[in-house]
Amino acid sequence: MKTPIIIVNFKAYKEGTGRNAVKLAKICEKVAKKTKKNIAIAVEEVDIRNISSKVKIPVLSEHLDSIREGAHTGNNLAEAIKENGAWGTLLNHSENRLRIDQLEESIKRAREVGLKTVVCANNSEIAEAVAAFEPDMIAIEPPELIGGDISVSTAKPQVITDTIKKVKRIANIPVLCGAGIKSGADVKKAIKLGAKGILVASGIVKAKDPEKALTELADAL
Amino acid sequence: MKTPIIIVNFKAYKEGTGRNAVKLAKICEKVAKKTKKNIAIAVEEVDIRNISSKVKIPVLSEHLDSIREGAHTGNNLAEAIKENGAWGTLLNHSENRLRIDQLEESIKRAREVGLKTVVCANNSEIAEAVAAFEPDMIAIEPPELIGGDISVSTAKPQVITDTIKKVKRIANIPVLCGAGIKSGADVKKAIKLGAKGILVASGIVKAKDPEKALTELADAL
Amino acid sequence: MKTPIIIVNFKAYKEGTGRNAVKLAKICEKVAKKTKKNIAIAVEEVDIRNISSKVKIPVLSEHLDSIREGAHTGNNLAEAIKENGAWGTLLNHSENRLRIDQLEESIKRAREVGLKTVVCANNSEIAEAVAAFEPDMIAIEPPELIGGDISVSTAKPQVITDTIKKVKRIANIPVLCGAGIKSGADVKKAIKLGAKGILVASGIVKAKDPEKALTELADAL
Amino acid sequence: MKTPIIIVNFKAYKEGTGRNAVKLAKICEKVAKKTKKNIAIAVEEVDIRNISSKVKIPVLSEHLDSIREGAHTGNNLAEAIKENGAWGTLLNHSENRLRIDQLEESIKRAREVGLKTVVCANNSEIAEAVAAFEPDMIAIEPPELIGGDISVSTAKPQVITDTIKKVKRIANIPVLCGAGIKSGADVKKAIKLGAKGILVASGIVKAKDPEKALTELADAL
Repeated sequence: MKTPIIIVNFKAYKEGTGRNAVKLAKICEKVAKKTKKNIAIAVEEVDIRNISSKVKIPVLSEHLDSIREGAHTGNNLAEAIKENGAWGTLLNHSENRLRIDQLEESIKRAREVGLKTVVCANNSEIAEAVAAFEPDMIAIEPPELIGGDISVSTAKPQVITDTIKKVKRIANIPVLCGAGIKSGADVKKAIKLGAKGILVASGIVKAKDPEKALTELADAL
Repeated sequence: MKTPIIIVNFKAYKEGTGRNAVKLAKICEKVAKKTKKNIAIAVEEVDIRNISSKVKIPVLSEHLDSIREGAHTGNNLAEAIKENGAWGTLLNHSENRLRIDQLEESIKRAREVGLKTVVCANNSEIAEAVAAFEPDMIAIEPPELIGGDISVSTAKPQVITDTIKKVKRIANIPVLCGAGIKSGADVKKAIKLGAKGILVASGIVKAKDPEKALTELADAL
Repeated sequence: MKTPIIIVNFKAYKEGTGRNAVKLAKICEKVAKKTKKNIAIAVEEVDIRNISSKVKIPVLSEHLDSIREGAHTGNNLAEAIKENGAWGTLLNHSENRLRIDQLEESIKRAREVGLKTVVCANNSEIAEAVAAFEPDMIAIEPPELIGGDISVSTAKPQVITDTIKKVKRIANIPVLCGAGIKSGADVKKAIKLGAKGILVASGIVKAKDPEKALTELADAL
Repeated sequence: MKTPIIIVNFKAYKEGTGRNAVKLAKICEKVAKKTKKNIAIAVEEVDIRNISSKVKIPVLSEHLDSIREGAHTGNNLAEAIKENGAWGTLLNHSENRLRIDQLEESIKRAREVGLKTVVCANNSEIAEAVAAFEPDMIAIEPPELIGGDISVSTAKPQVITDTIKKVKRIANIPVLCGAGIKSGADVKKAIKLGAKGILVASGIVKAKDPEKALTELADAL
């Protein structure tokens, strides 16, 4: 998993769903090639197959169930996520918090089937706790800034540095940051504070010109 | 939605996941053609795209989130389920019970995007309640018989007749039955009791010879 | 269960917790005596014992777990709710929606141990569904109006009449209404529309003078 | 919080509910006095008031909601748990696993209102993660041994020693162990392995002679 990296979370935005998601994924791929930066995307499970067959940048599922094969209706098996083309998974986003035991088990399951894990945390204590599960990356996102206009790197720089320090005590895991990231300046600040990349959603997915917006972030990486 | 119908729930069985799911779906399609009976399958969301591009029988997602487009990480939008090839959705299975408000909203969302709904109920009171939401079909499955060796039509025939009676008071919705269905005799009993079809999982998915097992059920339909 | 009735939901407001809850419960009791109207209160489980030993008006728990006695850590057994002095329970509030199977089971459990049930519904379809479970009362509360300044009886009178009509199709269960109720005029409108009482929270609990506010509602009942 | 300690979890056993819970609590208190050992009990929220007014040993709630005062129906406010006589809370039991963010917040809320926290973990990784939240105690309980006949100290001694080692890396928090503890020999082994106490449920609550059973454990402490 190469850093620095930008992960674009498509959420369930209409611009990030179905046909639109394929279009947006191609834009992300284009920017990745053009800028030679690492860009990955997180998409709805049902869209993984189609998107991953059409772009070569890494595709993450927006969730991964902790279950093992068997009588479980309504879950997606880790093996199926992998087989349909995912490269990793985004776990414990503020819109999808997990039970602590299921989070740990989902990370194990991902590892078993060869999926990378990026785990979100709302504060530095939770980031530290998550580090004990040894995911591939940890993304710190103060929930009150998600979807807003002020970036975490501007509003709460200390959350980033604290998180990096606490995570390092446990394991050598790259820390990304997210919430409110919109400009190249936001990205530069984040990297300067020690972040190894950023997690972004509405700033790209809902942008009037996603290619331009993402290019600005990638250039600043 | 034509009846009588057999719906095969692939759950998260390894035989019903990824490549294996495609194989099993083709077997179901073959039996449907051969016997000229209505057979549908319920599969993991991540497998919908691949399976629905390879078979022509109706494909249901094993779940449908009630959310609308927007900032929801880890959910699959109804529009995306539809766009990737699903024909309907199986809701409220005993392994995936839903909050009453979300169940109602999921049925509405399915209707909005043109997906059929089959809603599971564990007893006749819940079937009656579900009827108020006007799904396309209701499947009665006493949870204690699921995955077992005695079929609902043998062990609890009155649950089926009670359910049909109670549902009819509310709306004219076909009632399927499930749990422990393994033989043609089980199917015949169910139909005789008034069921418009059956919901089956391990009896087919885990069968040594799924084609033979499903053919027996289809012939009895 | 006598109607018409006012049920005051203490929620987890600080004015409705611990010592304050006892004070507020006594005010409710005083207004009930003074106005000779039926007034009940819904309180946190942990406060039931203390409150029910100090007032004689009916005390409802704000929730009731569906479990039966056994190895369940963190749940409150229906028998314990009853033994500690509750008279009934408020179920499925918009802040505490329940799985459809657990809602049905909680109503059964309440009946078994002799607790009355008041079940909330967000729309008329859900009220109709809930009626199939035969609770003692159904309270219709459009969630978007809860805690607001416009009462359901003013903003959405048709929701009340539709709900009464749909519930009556299933069973003869009194329908209460809630959300935004603040004045005697709101109560009068509700009763005129056919409601058998009201469910109120912030309008009383957060009122500057709860006794005065509740007296106004009770007088209008 | 004095160690070594025995915490008896009353769960929702009928022997640990309502009047029976008061009786059992008195037995625990009697054994505590007689043996001069630290014994605490974890009880249903609705029973806290009654039990804590009748015994002097520490009473824990079996759960603590993470919410703050406000519009939350069906939750028990930390302040109310405290005011009604609780001394602490047992969190994240295998029968009541919590979302990672809510677990962290519940521990903070307990600290704010002056309640001690004992947090359960199913394996050493989760115990390490939990240590980042700095609860007062951590209890390691392999879920597959809970309620069984072989104690964790006999079946999986390494789980205990691993947990103690991993927790120590993060913070100096006493580790208890639980699952299958039935005899004085089980307790001695646990203490020898470094545990600072035990968490026990059915072994005492469902014992034919709880006083005798608890005395044996306490003597061995």
